[in-house]
Amino acid sequence: MRVAVIGVGLIGGSIASAARERLGASVSGMDRDPAVLEVALRRGLIDRACQSLVDAVDGAQAAFVAVPVGGLSATVRATLEVAGDDCVVSDVGSTKRAVTEAFGADARFVGGHPLAGTELSGPEHARADLFAGATWYLTPAADSLSSELFGRLRALIEGMGARVEAIDAEDHDRLVASISHLPHVLANALVCEARAAVLATGRGLSATGPSLRDATRVAGAPGAIWTDIYLQNADLLAAAIERAVASLEQFRGALEASDAERIAAFNEAAAAARRELFSS
Amino acid sequence: MRVAVIGVGLIGGSIASAARERLGASVSGMDRDPAVLEVALRRGLIDRACQSLVDAVDGAQAAFVAVPVGGLSATVRATLEVAGDDCVVSDVGSTKRAVTEAFGADARFVGGHPLAGTELSGPEHARADLFAGATWYLTPAADSLSSELFGRLRALIEGMGARVEAIDAEDHDRLVASISHLPHVLANALVCEARAAVLATGRGLSATGPSLRDATRVAGAPGAIWTDIYLQNADLLAAAIERAVASLEQFRGALEASDAERIAAFNEAAAAARRELFSS
Repeated sequence: MRVAVIGVGLIGGSIASAARERLGASVSGMDRDPAVLEVALRRGLIDRACQSLVDAVDGAQAAFVAVPVGGLSATVRATLEVAGDDCVVSDVGSTKRAVTEAFGADARFVGGHPLAGTELSGPEHARADLFAGATWYLTPAADSLSSELFGRLRALIEGMGARVEAIDAEDHDRLVASISHLPHVLANALVCEARAAVLATGRGLSATGPSLRDATRVAGAPGAIWTDIYLQNADLLAAAIERAVASLEQFRGALEASDAERIAAFNEAAAAARRELFSS
Repeated sequence: MRVAVIGVGLIGGSIASAARERLGASVSGMDRDPAVLEVALRRGLIDRACQSLVDAVDGAQAAFVAVPVGGLSATVRATLEVAGDDCVVSDVGSTKRAVTEAFGADARFVGGHPLAGTELSGPEHARADLFAGATWYLTPAADSLSSELFGRLRALIEGMGARVEAIDAEDHDRLVASISHLPHVLANALVCEARAAVLATGRGLSATGPSLRDATRVAGAPGAIWTDIYLQNADLLAAAIERAVASLEQFRGALEASDAERIAAFNEAAAAARRELFSS
């Protein structure tokens, strides 16, 4: 099996490494940043460092495009132009409507999005087990679910240890607005408020607790990537923020009314939701 | 050194254990729940299980009241009534205005609040190193900062591995509204929105990612405790929520205007705030 990985940062580098180590694939890597490509080669994430897309996808049975959302469409288009008829092309972008609308008609393309990553980036932090146990969304066209190329892609991803979930692109984007993008936005708002509060006491900025640290782990995620993610999902994310704000305003109303019953109910609903989400 | 701990759950049990193991103190424990007291004794968190406050504080040089905020004032009052003249009495409640106003005139009382804990509760999870590296706020009256009792309390707490910060009670409550209570409220709102979003796709509730798990770790914290915490800090927490909502609404406006520059600026401010809070 020959696999091409276009963009060998944290996610692409981890795909490359997992394909090599867990699947015994031969992996060609490409990156527009020569330094990143060199690190990927030196760390053994890829077998070959390629200077062109043509070279990278030559003879590949699968190609993963793992570049930031901002440059994703152009890179997927260019990859499909040079990939062979028997090469399945996927991506790892955090939003799926735009790319699926643009390339869904090409039977070789299947949109993808692994729910994995860390607050770190770059091939220095890539690792073969990044996807172990993770959910990996795929957004195939309805008629490609039984295709050989889709089956190959699914097998590859499952071989990397992830759990494949086929999902409609619109459903995907609505879901990640709430479970991925909204957490980032709330963490950003929280960390700015916390900083202001600490400064207001005239104290050092290090006097903070464990709940704040966890709650803001994803705050300020790499701006160059996330501005594009937010923009690509702006409508659905704005709607999710609106719902969260309504819920916060309701809770604020209960506080101002000293309404212990409503406060307790809010807390209990949250406890039940978390049990459902993480204990089932 | 004899130490009394009133309420031997997660925090009280950990204080008891740290006092025994790290400071060699003899620790008397009391709890209104006989089962909790028995676990504390069986786990060796305390030397003696006492049936009354009088018995627990008899001969103690320090007493920690570690009961939920709802019953805090009554228990501190009762403890001060039976404690000797040479016994410093402190608490671990998450809000400090009410208890400081009520008992600040008693030279033996110093309000306290360790920024430690887990989403677990009960003496089963207590451990001697819970406070290692943690910030522990104390809210002494201005004239007691140089007193022998305050010095003894500070030394005890530092011996448990925590870093003592003396702070005005009002400043404390404003700070924790933003760095502790607001994170819980945001986590609650987020986990409910995430649950609704997952259900809306008609999928199983387990399809969630790592950022959501971390961001909602504190969601639905024990309601019996947290309803009282929220109520005791209702005014300052409501104000913190109002500021967070304003920030979220600004971001939503930027999304709806597809304003990449404002989106990037929001993200960059959050990245800078997090670096300041957690790398300094």
